[in-house]
Amino acid sequence: MQVFADEPASPSRAGGLVRVRLDLAYDGTAFSGWATQPGQRTVQETVEDALIVVLRLKERAGLTVAGRTDAGVHARGQVAHVDLPGGAWSALDEPLRALAGVLPADVRVTAAVRAPDGFDARFSALSRRYAYRVCDDAAGPDPLRRHEVLWHRRRLDVSAMADAARVLVGLHDFAAFCRRRSGATTVRTLLALDVTREASSLVRADVEADAFCHSMVRALLGALLPVGEGRRSTGWPGEVLRGGVRNSAVNVVPAHGLTLEAVHYPPAEELADRAQATRRPRA
Amino acid sequence: MQVFADEPASPSRAGGLVRVRLDLAYDGTAFSGWATQPGQRTVQETVEDALIVVLRLKERAGLTVAGRTDAGVHARGQVAHVDLPGGAWSALDEPLRALAGVLPADVRVTAAVRAPDGFDARFSALSRRYAYRVCDDAAGPDPLRRHEVLWHRRRLDVSAMADAARVLVGLHDFAAFCRRRSGATTVRTLLALDVTREASSLVRADVEADAFCHSMVRALLGALLPVGEGRRSTGWPGEVLRGGVRNSAVNVVPAHGLTLEAVHYPPAEELADRAQATRRPRA
Repeated sequence: MQVFADEPASPSRAGGLVRVRLDLAYDGTAFSGWATQPGQRTVQETVEDALIVVLRLKERAGLTVAGRTDAGVHARGQVAHVDLPGGAWSALDEPLRALAGVLPADVRVTAAVRAPDGFDARFSALSRRYAYRVCDDAAGPDPLRRHEVLWHRRRLDVSAMADAARVLVGLHDFAAFCRRRSGATTVRTLLALDVTREASSLVRADVEADAFCHSMVRALLGALLPVGEGRRSTGWPGEVLRGGVRNSAVNVVPAHGLTLEAVHYPPAEELADRAQATRRPRA
Repeated sequence: MQVFADEPASPSRAGGLVRVRLDLAYDGTAFSGWATQPGQRTVQETVEDALIVVLRLKERAGLTVAGRTDAGVHARGQVAHVDLPGGAWSALDEPLRALAGVLPADVRVTAAVRAPDGFDARFSALSRRYAYRVCDDAAGPDPLRRHEVLWHRRRLDVSAMADAARVLVGLHDFAAFCRRRSGATTVRTLLALDVTREASSLVRADVEADAFCHSMVRALLGALLPVGEGRRSTGWPGEVLRGGVRNSAVNVVPAHGLTLEAVHYPPAEELADRAQATRRPRA
Protein backbone atom coordinates (compact mmCIF):
# COMPACT_ATOMS: atom_id res chain seq x y z
CA MET A 1 0.00 0.00 0.00
CA GLN A 2 1.12 3.52 -0.85
CA VAL A 3 1.99 5.67 2.17
CA PHE A 4 1.48 9.46 2.12
CA ALA A 5 4.08 11.18 4.26
CA ASP A 6 1.97 14.30 4.70
CA GLU A 7 -1.21 12.58 5.80
CA PRO A 8 -2.57 14.75 8.63
CA ALA A 9 -3.58 13.57 12.06
CA SER A 10 -7.29 12.78 12.05
CA PRO A 11 -9.38 15.01 14.34
CA SER A 12 -10.63 11.98 16.26
CA ARG A 13 -7.07 10.99 17.19
CA ALA A 14 -5.93 14.49 18.15
CA GLY A 15 -8.01 15.45 21.20
CA GLY A 16 -9.28 19.04 21.35
CA LEU A 17 -8.53 19.86 17.72
CA VAL A 18 -11.13 21.05 15.24
CA ARG A 19 -10.68 20.76 11.49
CA VAL A 20 -11.18 24.05 9.64
CA ARG A 21 -11.67 24.48 5.90
CA LEU A 22 -9.96 27.54 4.41
CA ASP A 23 -10.77 28.86 0.93
CA LEU A 24 -7.91 30.89 -0.49
CA ALA A 25 -7.10 33.30 -3.30
CA TYR A 26 -3.61 34.49 -4.19
CA ASP A 27 -1.53 36.32 -6.73
CA GLY A 28 1.33 33.85 -7.24
CA THR A 29 3.71 36.45 -8.72
CA ALA A 30 5.76 37.05 -5.60
CA PHE A 31 5.47 33.54 -4.11
CA SER A 32 7.78 30.55 -4.66
CA GLY A 33 4.65 28.42 -5.00
CA TRP A 34 2.40 26.85 -2.38
CA ALA A 35 4.59 24.46 -0.43
CA THR A 36 6.91 25.62 2.33
CA GLN A 37 10.58 25.65 1.34
CA PRO A 38 13.41 26.90 3.55
CA GLY A 39 14.34 30.50 2.79
CA GLN A 40 11.52 31.00 0.26
CA ARG A 41 8.33 33.07 0.48
CA THR A 42 5.51 30.55 0.04
CA VAL A 43 1.72 30.75 0.34
CA GLN A 44 1.61 27.89 2.85
CA GLU A 45 4.06 29.47 5.27
CA THR A 46 2.47 32.92 4.89
CA VAL A 47 -1.01 31.61 5.80
CA GLU A 48 0.34 29.42 8.62
CA ASP A 49 2.16 32.47 10.03
CA ALA A 50 -1.09 34.48 9.94
CA LEU A 51 -2.92 31.69 11.82
CA ILE A 52 -0.22 31.72 14.51
CA VAL A 53 -0.77 35.46 14.99
CA VAL A 54 -4.57 35.65 14.99
CA LEU A 55 -5.05 32.47 17.09
CA ARG A 56 -1.97 33.05 19.30
CA LEU A 57 -0.86 29.47 18.60
CA LYS A 58 2.04 28.02 20.56
CA GLU A 59 3.10 25.89 17.61
CA ARG A 60 2.65 25.96 13.84
CA ALA A 61 -0.51 24.23 12.54
CA GLY A 62 0.25 22.64 9.17
CA LEU A 63 -2.05 23.23 6.18
CA THR A 64 -3.06 20.43 3.83
CA VAL A 65 -3.98 21.73 0.39
CA ALA A 66 -6.08 20.54 -2.56
CA GLY A 67 -3.69 21.73 -5.28
CA ARG A 68 0.01 22.35 -4.66
CA THR A 69 0.58 25.20 -7.07
CA ASP A 70 4.03 25.93 -8.52
CA ALA A 71 5.92 29.19 -8.30
CA GLY A 72 4.06 31.93 -10.18
CA VAL A 73 0.74 30.07 -10.40
CA HIS A 74 -2.31 31.92 -9.02
CA ALA A 75 -5.45 30.78 -7.25
CA ARG A 76 -9.01 32.03 -6.85
CA GLY A 77 -10.55 28.84 -5.46
CA GLN A 78 -7.78 27.02 -3.59
CA VAL A 79 -8.91 24.93 -0.60
CA ALA A 80 -6.91 23.81 2.42
CA HIS A 81 -7.66 22.30 5.80
CA VAL A 82 -5.93 22.74 9.12
CA ASP A 83 -6.47 21.16 12.54
CA LEU A 84 -6.61 23.88 15.19
CA PRO A 85 -7.04 23.92 18.98
CA GLY A 86 -10.81 24.06 19.46
CA GLY A 87 -10.66 26.71 22.15
CA ALA A 88 -8.59 29.14 20.14
CA TRP A 89 -10.79 28.67 17.07
CA SER A 90 -14.07 29.22 18.98
CA ALA A 91 -12.68 32.37 20.60
CA LEU A 92 -12.05 33.99 17.21
CA ASP A 93 -15.09 36.13 16.42
CA GLU A 94 -14.53 37.14 12.81
CA PRO A 95 -11.83 34.91 11.31
CA LEU A 96 -11.95 36.50 7.82
CA ARG A 97 -11.58 40.02 9.16
CA ALA A 98 -8.80 38.97 11.55
CA LEU A 99 -6.85 37.11 8.84
CA ALA A 100 -7.38 39.93 6.32
CA GLY A 101 -5.81 42.35 8.78
CA VAL A 102 -2.67 40.24 9.13
CA LEU A 103 -2.16 38.69 5.67
CA PRO A 104 -0.31 40.54 2.90
CA ALA A 105 -2.60 41.83 0.10
CA ASP A 106 -1.45 39.13 -2.37
CA VAL A 107 -3.12 36.32 -0.41
CA ARG A 108 -6.65 36.29 1.01
CA VAL A 109 -8.66 33.79 3.02
CA THR A 110 -12.10 34.07 1.42
CA ALA A 111 -13.87 31.57 3.70
CA ALA A 112 -12.98 29.85 6.97
CA VAL A 113 -15.47 27.39 8.46
CA ARG A 114 -15.49 24.32 10.67
CA ALA A 115 -15.13 21.44 8.18
CA PRO A 116 -17.79 18.72 8.00
CA ASP A 117 -16.85 15.31 9.40
CA GLY A 118 -14.57 13.34 7.14
CA PHE A 119 -13.39 16.38 5.19
CA ASP A 120 -9.85 16.31 3.84
CA ALA A 121 -8.94 19.17 1.48
CA ARG A 122 -6.68 16.88 -0.54
CA PHE A 123 -8.20 13.43 -0.42
CA SER A 124 -11.90 14.35 -0.36
CA ALA A 125 -11.64 16.44 -3.54
CA LEU A 126 -13.46 15.11 -6.60
CA SER A 127 -11.71 17.42 -9.04
CA ARG A 128 -9.59 20.53 -9.54
CA ARG A 129 -10.32 23.16 -12.21
CA TYR A 130 -7.65 25.45 -13.63
CA ALA A 131 -7.86 28.26 -16.19
CA TYR A 132 -4.98 29.17 -18.49
CA ARG A 133 -5.26 32.61 -20.14
CA VAL A 134 -3.48 33.74 -23.30
CA CYS A 135 -3.60 37.14 -25.00
CA ASP A 136 -2.98 36.79 -28.75
CA ASP A 137 -3.06 40.47 -29.68
CA ALA A 138 -0.06 42.23 -31.25
CA ALA A 139 -0.43 45.02 -28.67
CA GLY A 140 -0.03 42.68 -25.70
CA PRO A 141 -2.26 42.01 -22.69
CA ASP A 142 -4.31 44.56 -20.73
CA PRO A 143 -1.70 45.99 -18.31
CA LEU A 144 -4.06 45.40 -15.38
CA ARG A 145 -4.18 41.65 -16.17
CA ARG A 146 -0.62 41.12 -17.36
CA HIS A 147 0.35 39.13 -14.26
CA GLU A 148 -2.23 36.40 -15.01
CA VAL A 149 -2.21 36.31 -18.83
CA LEU A 150 0.44 34.89 -21.15
CA TRP A 151 1.29 37.08 -24.13
CA HIS A 152 1.40 35.05 -27.32
CA ARG A 153 2.45 37.26 -30.22
CA ARG A 154 0.70 35.27 -32.97
CA ARG A 155 -3.07 35.03 -33.48
CA LEU A 156 -4.51 31.68 -32.33
CA ASP A 157 -7.10 29.51 -34.11
CA VAL A 158 -9.32 28.70 -31.13
CA SER A 159 -11.56 26.21 -32.93
CA ALA A 160 -8.53 24.16 -34.04
CA MET A 161 -7.31 24.14 -30.41
CA ALA A 162 -10.75 23.09 -29.17
CA ASP A 163 -10.86 20.24 -31.71
CA ALA A 164 -7.40 19.04 -30.72
CA ALA A 165 -8.32 19.18 -27.03
CA ARG A 166 -11.35 16.93 -27.38
CA VAL A 167 -9.44 13.63 -27.80
CA LEU A 168 -7.45 14.30 -24.63
CA VAL A 169 -10.55 14.23 -22.42
CA GLY A 170 -11.20 11.01 -20.51
CA LEU A 171 -9.25 8.39 -18.56
CA HIS A 172 -5.71 8.15 -19.96
CA ASP A 173 -2.12 7.66 -18.97
CA PHE A 174 -0.86 11.26 -19.22
CA ALA A 175 2.83 10.27 -18.98
CA ALA A 176 3.48 12.26 -22.17
CA PHE A 177 2.48 15.47 -20.34
CA CYS A 178 3.96 14.70 -16.91
CA ARG A 179 7.28 15.00 -15.22
CA ARG A 180 8.00 11.37 -14.35
CA ARG A 181 8.30 10.52 -10.62
CA SER A 182 9.26 6.98 -9.72
CA GLY A 183 6.43 4.94 -8.20
CA ALA A 184 3.74 7.56 -8.96
CA THR A 185 0.99 6.85 -11.44
CA THR A 186 0.39 9.20 -14.36
CA VAL A 187 -3.12 7.85 -15.01
CA ARG A 188 -5.67 10.63 -14.65
CA THR A 189 -9.26 11.38 -15.64
CA LEU A 190 -9.35 14.60 -17.63
CA LEU A 191 -12.94 15.78 -17.12
CA ALA A 192 -12.81 18.88 -19.33
CA LEU A 193 -10.40 20.74 -21.60
CA ASP A 194 -12.39 23.58 -23.17
CA VAL A 195 -10.71 26.27 -25.25
CA THR A 196 -12.76 29.42 -25.84
CA ARG A 197 -12.24 33.07 -26.71
CA GLU A 198 -13.19 34.98 -23.53
CA ALA A 199 -12.71 38.40 -25.17
CA SER A 200 -11.56 39.68 -28.55
CA SER A 201 -7.91 39.02 -27.80
CA LEU A 202 -8.11 36.74 -24.77
CA VAL A 203 -8.15 32.94 -25.13
CA ARG A 204 -8.97 30.80 -22.11
CA ALA A 205 -8.49 27.07 -21.57
CA ASP A 206 -10.58 25.54 -18.76
CA VAL A 207 -8.97 22.33 -17.59
CA GLU A 208 -10.55 20.02 -15.04
CA ALA A 209 -9.35 16.63 -13.80
CA ASP A 210 -9.69 14.38 -10.77
CA ALA A 211 -6.05 15.28 -10.10
CA PHE A 212 -3.06 16.54 -12.06
CA CYS A 213 0.54 15.41 -12.30
CA HIS A 214 3.24 18.01 -11.92
CA SER A 215 3.18 20.66 -14.73
CA MET A 216 0.46 18.71 -16.58
CA VAL A 217 -1.82 21.68 -17.35
CA ARG A 218 1.11 23.71 -18.65
CA ALA A 219 2.27 20.79 -20.83
CA LEU A 220 -1.25 20.31 -22.24
CA LEU A 221 -1.28 23.99 -23.21
CA GLY A 222 2.19 23.58 -24.65
CA ALA A 223 0.74 20.96 -27.01
CA LEU A 224 -2.30 23.06 -27.94
CA LEU A 225 -0.60 26.40 -28.70
CA PRO A 226 1.28 25.07 -31.81
CA VAL A 227 -2.10 23.79 -33.07
CA GLY A 228 -3.58 27.25 -32.59
CA GLU A 229 -0.67 28.75 -34.51
CA GLY A 230 -1.11 26.25 -37.38
CA ARG A 231 2.38 24.77 -36.85
CA ARG A 232 0.91 21.40 -35.81
CA SER A 233 -2.19 19.48 -36.94
CA THR A 234 -5.23 19.13 -34.71
CA GLY A 235 -4.36 15.43 -34.40
CA TRP A 236 -0.92 16.06 -32.95
CA PRO A 237 -1.73 16.43 -29.20
CA GLY A 238 -3.59 13.09 -29.41
CA GLU A 239 -0.54 11.46 -31.02
CA VAL A 240 1.66 12.82 -28.24
CA LEU A 241 -0.74 11.38 -25.63
CA ARG A 242 -0.68 7.93 -27.27
CA GLY A 243 3.14 8.07 -27.42
CA GLY A 244 3.00 7.55 -23.66
CA VAL A 245 6.38 9.10 -22.84
CA ARG A 246 7.44 12.68 -22.02
CA ASN A 247 7.77 14.37 -25.40
CA SER A 248 10.49 16.99 -25.79
CA ALA A 249 8.54 18.63 -28.65
CA VAL A 250 6.01 19.82 -26.06
CA ASN A 251 7.06 23.04 -24.33
CA VAL A 252 5.73 23.60 -20.82
CA VAL A 253 4.16 27.09 -21.01
CA PRO A 254 4.98 29.77 -18.39
CA ALA A 255 3.40 29.58 -14.92
CA HIS A 256 1.92 33.08 -14.75
CA GLY A 257 -0.99 32.34 -17.16
CA LEU A 258 -2.30 29.61 -14.85
CA THR A 259 -4.92 30.06 -12.10
CA LEU A 260 -6.50 27.39 -9.88
CA GLU A 261 -10.15 28.42 -10.13
CA ALA A 262 -12.04 25.81 -8.12
CA VAL A 263 -11.89 22.52 -6.21
CA HIS A 264 -14.97 20.34 -6.13
CA TYR A 265 -16.04 18.13 -3.23
CA PRO A 266 -18.85 15.60 -2.86
CA PRO A 267 -21.81 16.23 -0.50
CA ALA A 268 -20.90 16.09 3.21
CA GLU A 269 -22.16 12.54 3.74
CA GLU A 270 -19.80 11.19 1.04
CA LEU A 271 -16.62 13.00 2.16
CA ALA A 272 -15.09 10.21 4.24
CA ASP A 273 -15.78 7.53 1.61
CA ARG A 274 -14.25 9.70 -1.08
CA ALA A 275 -11.11 10.30 1.00
CA GLN A 276 -10.73 6.56 1.61
CA ALA A 277 -11.21 5.75 -2.09
CA THR A 278 -8.66 8.38 -3.16
CA ARG A 279 -6.03 7.07 -0.75
CA ARG A 280 -6.29 3.60 -2.32
CA PRO A 281 -3.60 3.31 -5.02
CA ARG A 282 -4.84 3.08 -8.62
CA ALA A 283 -4.82 -0.34 -10.27
CA MET B 1 -11.23 84.42 -25.48
CA GLN B 2 -9.64 81.70 -23.38
CA VAL B 3 -6.23 80.59 -24.64
CA PHE B 4 -5.04 77.02 -24.18
CA ALA B 5 -1.28 76.87 -23.72
CA ASP B 6 -1.03 73.27 -24.85
CA GLU B 7 -3.00 73.65 -28.07
CA PRO B 8 -1.12 71.58 -30.64
CA ALA B 9 0.03 72.73 -34.06
CA SER B 10 -2.65 71.88 -36.59
CA PRO B 11 -1.55 69.42 -39.27
CA SER B 12 -2.33 71.94 -42.01
CA ARG B 13 0.10 74.48 -40.55
CA ALA B 14 2.90 71.98 -39.88
CA GLY B 15 4.01 70.77 -43.32
CA GLY B 16 4.78 67.06 -43.62
CA LEU B 17 3.21 66.07 -40.32
CA VAL B 18 0.42 63.53 -39.97
CA ARG B 19 -1.86 63.35 -36.98
CA VAL B 20 -2.05 59.89 -35.40
CA ARG B 21 -4.64 58.70 -32.89
CA LEU B 22 -3.28 56.41 -30.18
CA ASP B 23 -5.54 54.30 -27.93
CA LEU B 24 -3.84 53.43 -24.67
CA ALA B 25 -4.18 51.14 -21.67
CA TYR B 26 -2.07 51.34 -18.54
CA ASP B 27 -1.67 50.15 -14.99
CA GLY B 28 -1.20 53.43 -13.16
CA THR B 29 0.38 51.84 -10.06
CA ALA B 30 3.99 52.67 -10.93
CA PHE B 31 3.34 55.94 -12.79
CA SER B 32 3.22 59.48 -11.35
CA GLY B 33 0.15 60.05 -13.51
CA TRP B 34 -0.21 60.95 -17.19
CA ALA B 35 1.48 64.32 -17.57
CA THR B 36 5.24 64.69 -17.89
CA GLN B 37 6.93 66.00 -14.73
CA PRO B 38 10.67 66.40 -14.30
CA GLY B 39 12.25 63.44 -12.52
CA GLN B 40 9.01 61.41 -12.44
CA ARG B 41 7.99 58.28 -14.37
CA THR B 42 4.87 59.32 -16.31
CA VAL B 43 2.75 57.64 -18.98
CA GLN B 44 3.16 60.56 -21.37
CA GLU B 45 6.95 60.55 -21.29
CA THR B 46 7.10 56.74 -21.48
CA VAL B 47 4.97 56.65 -24.64
CA GLU B 48 6.77 59.62 -26.20
CA ASP B 49 10.09 57.87 -25.53
CA ALA B 50 8.80 54.71 -27.27
CA LEU B 51 7.74 56.77 -30.33
CA ILE B 52 11.22 58.30 -30.53
CA VAL B 53 12.71 54.79 -30.63
CA VAL B 54 10.38 53.07 -33.10
CA LEU B 55 10.16 56.06 -35.48
CA ARG B 56 13.80 57.17 -35.00
CA LEU B 57 12.57 60.72 -34.34
CA LYS B 58 15.11 63.52 -34.10
CA GLU B 59 12.98 65.39 -31.58
CA ARG B 60 10.23 64.53 -29.10
CA ALA B 61 6.69 64.59 -30.50
CA GLY B 62 4.28 65.76 -27.79
CA LEU B 63 1.13 63.79 -26.98
CA THR B 64 -2.23 65.53 -26.38
CA VAL B 65 -4.51 63.40 -24.25
CA ALA B 66 -8.27 63.14 -23.66
CA GLY B 67 -8.05 62.58 -19.89
CA ARG B 68 -5.05 63.66 -17.80
CA THR B 69 -5.10 60.93 -15.19
CA ASP B 70 -3.57 61.45 -11.74
CA ALA B 71 -0.89 59.32 -10.09
CA GLY B 72 -2.18 55.80 -9.50
CA VAL B 73 -5.20 56.08 -11.84
CA HIS B 74 -5.46 53.39 -14.54
CA ALA B 75 -6.77 53.43 -18.10
CA ARG B 76 -8.24 50.91 -20.53
CA GLY B 77 -9.61 53.36 -23.09
CA GLN B 78 -7.37 56.44 -22.94
CA VAL B 79 -6.99 58.34 -26.23
CA ALA B 80 -4.19 60.67 -27.32
CA HIS B 81 -3.07 62.28 -30.55
CA VAL B 82 0.39 63.12 -31.78
CA ASP B 83 1.64 64.89 -34.92
CA LEU B 84 4.40 62.82 -36.51
CA PRO B 85 6.65 63.23 -39.56
CA GLY B 86 4.63 61.64 -42.38
CA GLY B 87 7.59 59.75 -43.85
CA ALA B 88 8.58 58.09 -40.58
CA TRP B 89 4.96 57.12 -39.84
CA SER B 90 4.36 55.62 -43.31
CA ALA B 91 7.60 53.61 -43.09
CA LEU B 92 6.42 51.87 -39.91
CA ASP B 93 4.83 48.57 -40.98
CA GLU B 94 3.25 47.31 -37.79
CA PRO B 95 3.07 50.16 -35.27
CA LEU B 96 1.35 48.12 -32.52
CA ARG B 97 3.90 45.33 -32.68
CA ALA B 98 6.80 47.81 -32.80
CA LEU B 99 5.51 49.82 -29.83
CA ALA B 100 4.66 46.67 -27.85
CA GLY B 101 8.27 45.54 -28.25
CA VAL B 102 9.62 48.79 -26.78
CA LEU B 103 7.05 49.80 -24.14
CA PRO B 104 7.14 48.44 -20.58
CA ALA B 105 4.39 45.90 -19.80
CA ASP B 106 2.40 48.38 -17.69
CA VAL B 107 1.47 50.53 -20.69
CA ARG B 108 0.15 49.34 -24.07
CA VAL B 109 -0.82 51.11 -27.28
CA THR B 110 -3.93 49.17 -28.31
CA ALA B 111 -4.58 51.06 -31.56
CA ALA B 112 -2.57 53.52 -33.66
CA VAL B 113 -4.17 54.95 -36.80
CA ARG B 114 -4.01 58.06 -38.97
CA ALA B 115 -6.58 60.38 -37.36
CA PRO B 116 -9.50 61.69 -39.41
CA ASP B 117 -9.40 65.38 -40.40
CA GLY B 118 -10.23 67.71 -37.55
CA PHE B 119 -9.52 65.12 -34.84
CA ASP B 120 -8.19 66.42 -31.54
CA ALA B 121 -7.99 63.85 -28.73
CA ARG B 122 -8.81 66.49 -26.13
CA PHE B 123 -11.12 68.97 -27.81
CA SER B 124 -13.06 66.65 -30.11
CA ALA B 125 -14.10 64.35 -27.25
CA LEU B 126 -17.81 64.31 -26.43
CA SER B 127 -17.35 62.55 -23.09
CA ARG B 128 -15.07 60.54 -20.83
CA ARG B 129 -16.22 57.46 -18.92
CA TYR B 130 -14.53 56.27 -15.73
CA ALA B 131 -15.18 53.24 -13.52
CA TYR B 132 -14.50 53.20 -9.79
CA ARG B 133 -14.35 49.75 -8.18
CA VAL B 134 -14.83 48.94 -4.49
CA CYS B 135 -14.64 45.56 -2.76
CA ASP B 136 -16.84 45.50 0.34
CA ASP B 137 -16.02 42.01 1.58
CA ALA B 138 -14.42 41.41 4.99
CA ALA B 139 -11.81 39.17 3.32
CA GLY B 140 -10.57 41.93 0.99
CA PRO B 141 -10.28 42.11 -2.80
CA ASP B 142 -9.26 39.31 -5.16
CA PRO B 143 -5.44 39.50 -4.98
CA LEU B 144 -5.24 39.54 -8.79
CA ARG B 145 -7.35 42.72 -8.90
CA ARG B 146 -6.11 44.45 -5.76
CA HIS B 147 -4.28 47.16 -7.75
CA GLU B 148 -7.53 48.42 -9.34
CA VAL B 149 -10.05 47.87 -6.54
CA LEU B 150 -10.48 49.85 -3.31
CA TRP B 151 -10.98 47.73 -0.21
CA HIS B 152 -13.84 49.08 1.87
CA ARG B 153 -14.20 47.06 5.07
CA ARG B 154 -17.91 47.69 5.62
CA ARG B 155 -20.72 46.26 3.48
CA LEU B 156 -22.27 48.87 1.13
CA ASP B 157 -25.95 49.46 0.37
CA VAL B 158 -25.75 49.77 -3.39
CA SER B 159 -29.36 50.80 -3.95
CA ALA B 160 -29.00 53.70 -1.48
CA MET B 161 -25.85 54.81 -3.35
CA ALA B 162 -27.66 54.54 -6.71
CA ASP B 163 -30.56 56.66 -5.38
CA ALA B 164 -28.20 59.30 -4.03
CA ALA B 165 -26.30 59.40 -7.32
CA ARG B 166 -29.38 60.13 -9.45
CA VAL B 167 -29.79 63.78 -8.42
CA LEU B 168 -26.18 64.54 -9.32
CA VAL B 169 -26.72 63.69 -13.01
CA GLY B 170 -27.21 66.64 -15.36
CA LEU B 171 -25.75 70.10 -15.97
CA HIS B 172 -24.53 71.53 -12.66
CA ASP B 173 -21.79 73.60 -11.10
CA PHE B 174 -19.68 70.86 -9.49
CA ALA B 175 -17.60 73.29 -7.41
CA ALA B 176 -18.46 71.25 -4.30
CA PHE B 177 -16.60 68.27 -5.78
CA CYS B 178 -13.72 70.10 -7.47
CA ARG B 179 -10.38 71.47 -6.47
CA ARG B 180 -10.83 75.16 -7.26
CA ARG B 181 -8.55 76.66 -9.95
CA SER B 182 -8.79 80.39 -10.58
CA GLY B 183 -10.42 81.30 -13.87
CA ALA B 184 -11.56 77.74 -14.65
CA THR B 185 -15.22 76.85 -14.73
CA THR B 186 -16.55 74.00 -12.60
CA VAL B 187 -19.74 73.67 -14.65
CA ARG B 188 -19.99 70.19 -16.15
CA THR B 189 -22.63 67.89 -17.62
CA LEU B 190 -22.67 64.64 -15.68
CA LEU B 191 -24.14 62.20 -18.22
CA ALA B 192 -24.22 59.11 -16.00
CA LEU B 193 -23.43 58.04 -12.45
CA ASP B 194 -24.55 54.43 -12.13
CA VAL B 195 -23.75 52.37 -9.05
CA THR B 196 -24.14 48.60 -9.45
CA ARG B 197 -22.90 45.39 -7.87
CA GLU B 198 -20.63 43.80 -10.50
CA ALA B 199 -19.99 40.66 -8.43
CA SER B 200 -20.97 39.41 -4.96
CA SER B 201 -18.43 41.64 -3.23
CA LEU B 202 -17.51 44.11 -5.98
CA VAL B 203 -19.34 47.44 -6.35
CA ARG B 204 -18.74 49.53 -9.49
CA ALA B 205 -19.61 53.16 -10.18
CA ASP B 206 -19.71 54.13 -13.86
CA VAL B 207 -19.23 57.87 -14.19
CA GLU B 208 -19.52 59.72 -17.49
CA ALA B 209 -19.32 63.45 -18.18
CA ASP B 210 -18.47 65.81 -21.01
CA ALA B 211 -15.36 66.60 -18.96
CA PHE B 212 -14.24 66.37 -15.35
CA CYS B 213 -12.57 68.82 -12.99
CA HIS B 214 -9.55 67.65 -11.05
CA SER B 215 -10.34 64.78 -8.60
CA MET B 216 -14.08 65.14 -9.34
CA VAL B 217 -14.82 61.41 -9.78
CA ARG B 218 -12.98 60.57 -6.57
CA ALA B 219 -14.86 63.31 -4.67
CA LEU B 220 -18.23 62.07 -6.02
CA LEU B 221 -17.37 58.59 -4.72
CA GLY B 222 -16.28 60.15 -1.45
CA ALA B 223 -19.83 61.52 -1.10
CA LEU B 224 -21.51 58.23 -2.06
CA LEU B 225 -19.56 55.82 0.18
CA PRO B 226 -20.94 57.25 3.47
CA VAL B 227 -24.45 56.81 1.97
CA GLY B 228 -23.64 53.18 1.19
CA GLU B 229 -22.46 52.72 4.79
CA GLY B 230 -25.64 54.32 6.19
CA ARG B 231 -23.69 57.15 7.85
CA ARG B 232 -25.31 59.74 5.54
CA SER B 233 -28.80 60.02 4.05
CA THR B 234 -29.41 59.46 0.33
CA GLY B 235 -30.15 63.18 0.07
CA TRP B 236 -26.77 64.27 1.37
CA PRO B 237 -24.68 64.20 -1.86
CA GLY B 238 -27.35 66.43 -3.49
CA GLU B 239 -27.13 68.87 -0.56
CA VAL B 240 -23.37 68.99 -0.93
CA LEU B 241 -23.77 69.74 -4.67
CA ARG B 242 -26.22 72.58 -3.99
CA GLY B 243 -23.84 74.00 -1.36
CA GLY B 244 -21.67 75.04 -4.30
CA VAL B 245 -18.35 75.15 -2.43
CA ARG B 246 -15.70 72.52 -1.75
CA ASN B 247 -17.00 70.56 1.23
CA SER B 248 -14.47 69.26 3.73
CA ALA B 249 -16.90 66.53 4.85
CA VAL B 250 -16.32 64.85 1.47
CA ASN B 251 -13.21 62.67 1.42
CA VAL B 252 -11.52 62.19 -1.95
CA VAL B 253 -11.22 58.41 -2.27
CA PRO B 254 -7.87 56.77 -3.21
CA ALA B 255 -6.70 56.85 -6.83
CA HIS B 256 -6.07 53.13 -7.36
CA GLY B 257 -9.79 52.22 -7.62
CA LEU B 258 -10.23 54.51 -10.63
CA THR B 259 -9.91 53.49 -14.30
CA LEU B 260 -10.54 55.60 -17.41
CA GLU B 261 -12.59 53.13 -19.45
CA ALA B 262 -13.54 55.05 -22.60
CA VAL B 263 -13.54 58.37 -24.46
CA HIS B 264 -16.33 59.06 -26.90
CA TYR B 265 -16.01 61.10 -30.12
CA PRO B 266 -18.59 62.28 -32.66
CA PRO B 267 -18.66 60.90 -36.21
CA ALA B 268 -15.70 62.00 -38.37
CA GLU B 269 -17.61 64.76 -40.17
CA GLU B 270 -18.41 66.51 -36.86
CA LEU B 271 -14.94 66.35 -35.30
CA ALA B 272 -13.75 69.82 -36.26
CA ASP B 273 -17.01 71.52 -35.23
CA ARG B 274 -16.92 69.75 -31.90
CA ALA B 275 -13.31 70.85 -31.25
CA GLN B 276 -14.21 74.45 -32.07
CA ALA B 277 -17.26 74.37 -29.79
CA THR B 278 -15.27 72.87 -26.91
CA ARG B 279 -12.55 75.52 -27.18
CA ARG B 280 -15.16 78.25 -26.75
CA PRO B 281 -15.35 79.17 -23.03
CA ARG B 282 -18.58 78.28 -21.24
CA ALA B 283 -21.04 81.06 -20.55
